[in-house]
Amino acid sequence: MPNDVLILDGQSLTVADVYTVAYGRRPVQISEEAIVRVKASRDLIFELAEQDVPVYGLNRGVGWNKDRVIDKAFFERFNRNLILSHSAGVGAEAAEEEVRAVMLVRLNALLLGCTGVQLAIVQRYVDFLNLEIHPMLPLKGSVGAADITILSHIGLSFIGEGEVVMNGERLPTEAAMNKAGLKPLVLGPKDGLAIVSSNALSAGTGALVLHECEEILELADIVYALSLEALRGNVSPLDEAVHRVRPYKGQLKSVAHVRDILKQSYLWNSNLVDSLQDPLSFRGACQIHGAAYDALQYTREQLHIHLNSSDDNPCVLLEEKRILSCANFESVSWTLGFEMLGSALHHVSKSACYRTIKLGTPSFTGLSRFLTANEEYSIGYCTVQKTITALDAEIRHLSNPASADYFSLAGDLEDHAANSPYVVAKTRDIIDRLYYIIGIEALHAVQAIDLRKDLTQGLGTKAAYESIRSAVPFLGEDRNLSIDIEQAYQLLKSGQFLAKVRASLIN
Amino acid sequence: MPNDVLILDGQSLTVADVYTVAYGRRPVQISEEAIVRVKASRDLIFELAEQDVPVYGLNRGVGWNKDRVIDKAFFERFNRNLILSHSAGVGAEAAEEEVRAVMLVRLNALLLGCTGVQLAIVQRYVDFLNLEIHPMLPLKGSVGAADITILSHIGLSFIGEGEVVMNGERLPTEAAMNKAGLKPLVLGPKDGLAIVSSNALSAGTGALVLHECEEILELADIVYALSLEALRGNVSPLDEAVHRVRPYKGQLKSVAHVRDILKQSYLWNSNLVDSLQDPLSFRGACQIHGAAYDALQYTREQLHIHLNSSDDNPCVLLEEKRILSCANFESVSWTLGFEMLGSALHHVSKSACYRTIKLGTPSFTGLSRFLTANEEYSIGYCTVQKTITALDAEIRHLSNPASADYFSLAGDLEDHAANSPYVVAKTRDIIDRLYYIIGIEALHAVQAIDLRKDLTQGLGTKAAYESIRSAVPFLGEDRNLSIDIEQAYQLLKSGQFLAKVRASLIN
Amino acid sequence: MPNDVLILDGQSLTVADVYTVAYGRRPVQISEEAIVRVKASRDLIFELAEQDVPVYGLNRGVGWNKDRVIDKAFFERFNRNLILSHSAGVGAEAAEEEVRAVMLVRLNALLLGCTGVQLAIVQRYVDFLNLEIHPMLPLKGSVGAADITILSHIGLSFIGEGEVVMNGERLPTEAAMNKAGLKPLVLGPKDGLAIVSSNALSAGTGALVLHECEEILELADIVYALSLEALRGNVSPLDEAVHRVRPYKGQLKSVAHVRDILKQSYLWNSNLVDSLQDPLSFRGACQIHGAAYDALQYTREQLHIHLNSSDDNPCVLLEEKRILSCANFESVSWTLGFEMLGSALHHVSKSACYRTIKLGTPSFTGLSRFLTANEEYSIGYCTVQKTITALDAEIRHLSNPASADYFSLAGDLEDHAANSPYVVAKTRDIIDRLYYIIGIEALHAVQAIDLRKDLTQGLGTKAAYESIRSAVPFLGEDRNLSIDIEQAYQLLKSGQFLAKVRASLIN
Amino acid sequence: MPNDVLILDGQSLTVADVYTVAYGRRPVQISEEAIVRVKASRDLIFELAEQDVPVYGLNRGVGWNKDRVIDKAFFERFNRNLILSHSAGVGAEAAEEEVRAVMLVRLNALLLGCTGVQLAIVQRYVDFLNLEIHPMLPLKGSVGAADITILSHIGLSFIGEGEVVMNGERLPTEAAMNKAGLKPLVLGPKDGLAIVSSNALSAGTGALVLHECEEILELADIVYALSLEALRGNVSPLDEAVHRVRPYKGQLKSVAHVRDILKQSYLWNSNLVDSLQDPLSFRGACQIHGAAYDALQYTREQLHIHLNSSDDNPCVLLEEKRILSCANFESVSWTLGFEMLGSALHHVSKSACYRTIKLGTPSFTGLSRFLTANEEYSIGYCTVQKTITALDAEIRHLSNPASADYFSLAGDLEDHAANSPYVVAKTRDIIDRLYYIIGIEALHAVQAIDLRKDLTQGLGTKAAYESIRSAVPFLGEDRNLSIDIEQAYQLLKSGQFLAKVRASLIN
Repeated sequence: MPNDVLILDGQSLTVADVYTVAYGRRPVQISEEAIVRVKASRDLIFELAEQDVPVYGLNRGVGWNKDRVIDKAFFERFNRNLILSHSAGVGAEAAEEEVRAVMLVRLNALLLGCTGVQLAIVQRYVDFLNLEIHPMLPLKGSVGAADITILSHIGLSFIGEGEVVMNGERLPTEAAMNKAGLKPLVLGPKDGLAIVSSNALSAGTGALVLHECEEILELADIVYALSLEALRGNVSPLDEAVHRVRPYKGQLKSVAHVRDILKQSYLWNSNLVDSLQDPLSFRGACQIHGAAYDALQYTREQLHIHLNSSDDNPCVLLEEKRILSCANFESVSWTLGFEMLGSALHHVSKSACYRTIKLGTPSFTGLSRFLTANEEYSIGYCTVQKTITALDAEIRHLSNPASADYFSLAGDLEDHAANSPYVVAKTRDIIDRLYYIIGIEALHAVQAIDLRKDLTQGLGTKAAYESIRSAVPFLGEDRNLSIDIEQAYQLLKSGQFLAKVRASLIN
Repeated sequence: MPNDVLILDGQSLTVADVYTVAYGRRPVQISEEAIVRVKASRDLIFELAEQDVPVYGLNRGVGWNKDRVIDKAFFERFNRNLILSHSAGVGAEAAEEEVRAVMLVRLNALLLGCTGVQLAIVQRYVDFLNLEIHPMLPLKGSVGAADITILSHIGLSFIGEGEVVMNGERLPTEAAMNKAGLKPLVLGPKDGLAIVSSNALSAGTGALVLHECEEILELADIVYALSLEALRGNVSPLDEAVHRVRPYKGQLKSVAHVRDILKQSYLWNSNLVDSLQDPLSFRGACQIHGAAYDALQYTREQLHIHLNSSDDNPCVLLEEKRILSCANFESVSWTLGFEMLGSALHHVSKSACYRTIKLGTPSFTGLSRFLTANEEYSIGYCTVQKTITALDAEIRHLSNPASADYFSLAGDLEDHAANSPYVVAKTRDIIDRLYYIIGIEALHAVQAIDLRKDLTQGLGTKAAYESIRSAVPFLGEDRNLSIDIEQAYQLLKSGQFLAKVRASLIN
Repeated sequence: MPNDVLILDGQSLTVADVYTVAYGRRPVQISEEAIVRVKASRDLIFELAEQDVPVYGLNRGVGWNKDRVIDKAFFERFNRNLILSHSAGVGAEAAEEEVRAVMLVRLNALLLGCTGVQLAIVQRYVDFLNLEIHPMLPLKGSVGAADITILSHIGLSFIGEGEVVMNGERLPTEAAMNKAGLKPLVLGPKDGLAIVSSNALSAGTGALVLHECEEILELADIVYALSLEALRGNVSPLDEAVHRVRPYKGQLKSVAHVRDILKQSYLWNSNLVDSLQDPLSFRGACQIHGAAYDALQYTREQLHIHLNSSDDNPCVLLEEKRILSCANFESVSWTLGFEMLGSALHHVSKSACYRTIKLGTPSFTGLSRFLTANEEYSIGYCTVQKTITALDAEIRHLSNPASADYFSLAGDLEDHAANSPYVVAKTRDIIDRLYYIIGIEALHAVQAIDLRKDLTQGLGTKAAYESIRSAVPFLGEDRNLSIDIEQAYQLLKSGQFLAKVRASLIN
Repeated sequence: MPNDVLILDGQSLTVADVYTVAYGRRPVQISEEAIVRVKASRDLIFELAEQDVPVYGLNRGVGWNKDRVIDKAFFERFNRNLILSHSAGVGAEAAEEEVRAVMLVRLNALLLGCTGVQLAIVQRYVDFLNLEIHPMLPLKGSVGAADITILSHIGLSFIGEGEVVMNGERLPTEAAMNKAGLKPLVLGPKDGLAIVSSNALSAGTGALVLHECEEILELADIVYALSLEALRGNVSPLDEAVHRVRPYKGQLKSVAHVRDILKQSYLWNSNLVDSLQDPLSFRGACQIHGAAYDALQYTREQLHIHLNSSDDNPCVLLEEKRILSCANFESVSWTLGFEMLGSALHHVSKSACYRTIKLGTPSFTGLSRFLTANEEYSIGYCTVQKTITALDAEIRHLSNPASADYFSLAGDLEDHAANSPYVVAKTRDIIDRLYYIIGIEALHAVQAIDLRKDLTQGLGTKAAYESIRSAVPFLGEDRNLSIDIEQAYQLLKSGQFLAKVRASLIN
């Protein structure tokens, strides 16, 4: 992961960037042009406040209180109260990586100059990211339009309230600031909204989930390839010509990937395979994974627009010297992508389950029942079929939509939302369960490969086999399988397995 | 709708084409090149059968029976039995338009030369379309991988079995063929699979639903614009500059459309509007509709690939003189688009409901409660709030996913499906309810506009107003509202309303 | 079905009664005591109106208009407007049987004396039922709290508006009344609410659905027993002792029923069965069906309370000479029973599908693949596995909950609902699909029994076998299966099959 | 909570007992009669094994391996392998309270004598409970038919494997046993199944969730009463006469409870209330809560049967000296109760949200917007509307059914399941969110009561008010609301609030 500084300009942030800043703790810096825009936007705010044009959240209240006049003398008090009263998140708190992603996403959008925020606040995001000061964010309580109940907790820490984590320690913000030589900020006009009126929670965690999703799909391809070797499966459905006549981008990507992984495998030149058609969970895997790649690509493109555009309301239009009410914090378009992705991942999950069940079935493999090494005394991979299908049932449940279950709030003015943070969170929960399922599929595949003895594996599948076997030995005698499963899960989730397989494909 | 002949070549069929052939009964013709490909593909089949390479569904059985050898002497019997035994659809039958769409989609894919079907069968699709002979297709019973239980009913009619509709009359196929001077076809090798092994039911009905979806979104924009006039709403969220900083394609499309519709409206130059921020159902309508446009665009692109690629299995590879087993009938990628679209339409529905409720609320409109013309004796648009929200609850229910609820079938070989026909059908059912909801919103809007008196409407909203009022008079006294609602529904669903508004925008 | 007059007293209506009045067109009559109560209740209304105590819907408006005073001089106009403005249902119209059920349920509740309705209206329900005049009721548009948008259409016909069906003919209400010698009613105080403020649509259709549900569960037991004979299944799980230690009422009912059906079957004394444990879809069928019986029993008890209690608001308390605002039209308790029932039926459906698949699988039956009579040329019951699982996917979808997806309406006063009519309707749709699935299971079972030859069947299974075979012959050669399936469906749905099996158990 | 010993006999365990043993660490003891039954059942097992009657899981394998003979010499090895190979749970581990509940439930069912387990194992459950040795149970991976993948982890600890918690410390089982003076058990015939083949995980955690559910409904009643005082609501819908004509048990229970809580409240004798009809979230609260009480009662009765009956397979029939295959581990009937309960709780949640929103709305309360104490500078309870509705959206999502999403496993033999552990877990997650929502409603209610000043509260509402105010002060100035919310949540979840209110009602 690169540790070079990421230059932010509001226009070029990617999902991969979010990942490196979050997990790699990559430092950030603002471009010169962006600083100029931020300042100009701030100046415009003061100009407009001076003219006393009524502006939502500037010299007027927010939400239902949009009819309340905010006198200039009370800018600080109003903005401080806004931060305090909006701090209404509940439940488990965000991981530090998530907090970093959230701060980064908010920071980047501020650079577009549509906010009118003071530069010191912008700089504070930079400082917190680079000094690794991470405010405590409760994760529940936002309907996603915008994430005001949660982002306010970042605001709390900017004004010296609440708690943060710094150097692995949880402490009052004030104490952390003292250590870091920072002072609480004094909020000016619109600064409260600048901090809270954004979907940075949804989009920041969303970017991390998309990164995980990319990895899980890559893993699904690899372990499918492993299973195909384990099954002694028919590779004709992987023929490039077959896919040329069905040019779905995701399908093409998956089949190219699987072919790469299987390069040099015995499957290609073997005359051993006599199955005319393998089960669809094998035969159609690239189509199924491909559908998930397609859904991912759509969602990433939609989220990418969000990451590099303004979700401010009201929106400062610098060139036109105006500030306008709008609904650009609507996150529904990319949130729907996540809903689709959840269903796509359910298909991936269910076909992984079916492949795993087939690997335990002698009529498909020609091997022992449940891949036991000792048909007389050992039970082998029998009960674990319940583990994967129980997890798949949870994925089925999680894949139900949630984006449109909202109320009309705030004096009936906020009558739309997309529950984006929850939709993102349930997608993450789906992926977490998939690591287990695919891990268990991998355990089956390597066991079958061991039982077959002396196969010539593909480049990628060989690396995959070795990675699994470095963590989990052959199942000779029955043993506590939960331990093996946890090992496989950790191996996949940590990225180690993927790194090994990727490396094998480059060589 | 153009009545010129549509030339088919397997590579350029659009959703719009499907609509014109289905609803406009546009005749079709096959390109010369396509005929050459079809013939070459057929020749290859015979060549391969001669060599006795085992080919699924050619000289081997289908599904679990893939291990059964089919002797050449029994090609006809086998293919006939295949058609008969696969005729297992149930329930209500397809409309003639749907049957046409299905036949067209199957026909187009046959032209790619990946099927190996005899030319006479290809020609039979053309004849049935051009002679308007429409086989009876039951609509339930396909899991969508592929639509074999339903498409077999087209096969039935090709061999002179079953029933068709011709000139508005339902009659035995044989009788219709006699009238039309056609003979039952004699099936040869792979002809059974050629007819049944396709997702043409899903894709054909899917194309029609996408066409309806385009129209319903256009209607949603128009009626939203009408409601904005009715509310005396704030148009600043429609400012182009606001959307320039949030460049979602669908959002941009919706706002451009709404601005067009509202051209010359009093809303633009009026100083009457003093609301700083309207409810999100108004303020965010272009973002919400935009999300649906985005989802539609994704789904259309994915379906377009399907319409112009091969879903055959096994797949004939003409250039390479091979025939390969595959899973190209997997429809999961575009089916997931429909699932997303359903959720998107639920957002459209729910915000239409909220707008409608606001139009009945004096604190938002300054007008009478429930837009009654006589506050003393008349109740007006009160109870109808239940009608729209009851329909929205149905849409909420329909928007739940269904694509991954499948079993493992056919001797455990068919362990994936996408329930595409049902997913398409529930999307259609969502749209049907939306016509009612948007129709009722329109009734509210024109009533409010009448109560306001003498507004200068936009170009499009004026046409919209007039179209509604031509069918439903002002609600002075309470009357049976079901009649009014049905009128509005028919007006919208028939396309008449849309045609009037479109015309107004051109002038 | 008994055609003797049903005496109604408001306290003893059963689901079975609703069925006989609806389907058997059984005439009804009101008890003397009930007439006395209705009159007393009416008198009380006038007394209270005289005192000008503010009463919702009497001398005050309804819904949000509860603050509007209704002058006595305008009682008729107000009540007429109420009926008209509440007529806001849409979509397909109720069957005559459903209309009868709805009118009966409303009529019965009026007899409790909690309504204050004029006797002539009560009598009008009686007349319409006995003269078989059936108002046209659109079925969509009620959120179920109460069914005001739909019941108003009955009100329309009472005042001579709208349309009715009489002697199989659809005609304007006025014409029908003329034929029948009836006059339009003149509405007095609270009469509008008396007609519309009730859940009689939900409860009436609900009662019919529960009746169907009873039958489908009985059918599920019978066809399961048939399948057990077809499988040559192990009957030890049907041993009474096994169920004595697990005393779920439904389970006990199901096993007693199945044992009855299988009386004298070869399964009991045969030494042929060597399976230690059949698949759970067989072994656990009585537990699964039992769970559905339990859910049905709960729902019936809850609905029974509804059928015999007042859902009026405001509620006239005769003994105490008061009239009180309330929410007794809340139907949520029994509606939740229907939601549970839907899930229970999904379990019934899915296990029927699994049993059917097993019957096509040689390793479970020892018979031919897909029960084909000719393994060389015929395909048999192969593709039909898709039919049942496609229908099961629809049932899975329908079983999702819908009761809590409501808005806050009518000036934010009606912020709860239960979508009861839709929940009932989706349960009905589930049952309809189950008739197909169980019908197809039955086709498999009788085919397997034929293939086994000369089995000694149970009393009930023999009758079941004969009933199916009277409609659908043995599948020797492949044929159009849709026709067979439709026959089986009709046989089951019509009640003929059930009647034959029931008769066999009595003898 | 009573700490006296609970005598177990297999026939009289209640949900309350499970709670006291789990949370109160109440010790247990087996009745003399039960010991006799257990021994007799064990003797029968040996008798049958001696005769070599084939018995599933005794002298034959389990699942698909039911065709494998288990020689007597290998009973130990087989049973040990069974425990090991079935240990396949994953994910977060159970709380100690949950582990106690699970062990208790399994122990109780063993006492029916249907298992044939050795007495030492029965005694080991007793010892672990009384010595507070709690095996680590991963919570995911069981499909609930039965909970074999999880209960095996208890088996692990019985044979000295795995880890346990003892005196708050996690340690290897062996170490804990040494401390406690216990020895690893040696498993004999059927002992493996005795330990794992049960739904004790589902039923044990289910009992705890039902206990929580009882409390949350009691809380919902209390806080509703508080809100009614806050609203100055109309109590006529609480009139006993109104409910007498609508005799749903749950409704009657709720209204009696609410009347008790409101005894002596100003609401009863006040002439201040002039609202003819409050919103349904107030007016219908007892009906809505009542529906949840009804659903709870059903579920409790169904679970009670489970707690006191045998879920063994095969089932030992002591009196008849037989052992039979069965499916008594089917948990579908009571699991469906939980599904219904989830939907019922969603209604409770949604109406609590609507009441809370109303309390922030001046037109309903006559108080300040969002109950702010200072309309000029403070925002008050505005944003927190998002918190509750975001949580309600999660509850909506969790309330979707999950019980019927299962596969066919173990060589196609286990083709039914009910996902009971997950269904229970999601119900628990619903309740957890409800504590937040009801806590936030309570914060609103006490704030409104403070703003009204000097109300005479009811007995229960006064105690409720004081309990809340002891933890959360009046909201004068805006402050970090997350802290207040967490306080309210803890107060409710801990039972302290409930204890205070209950105490007030007794006096």
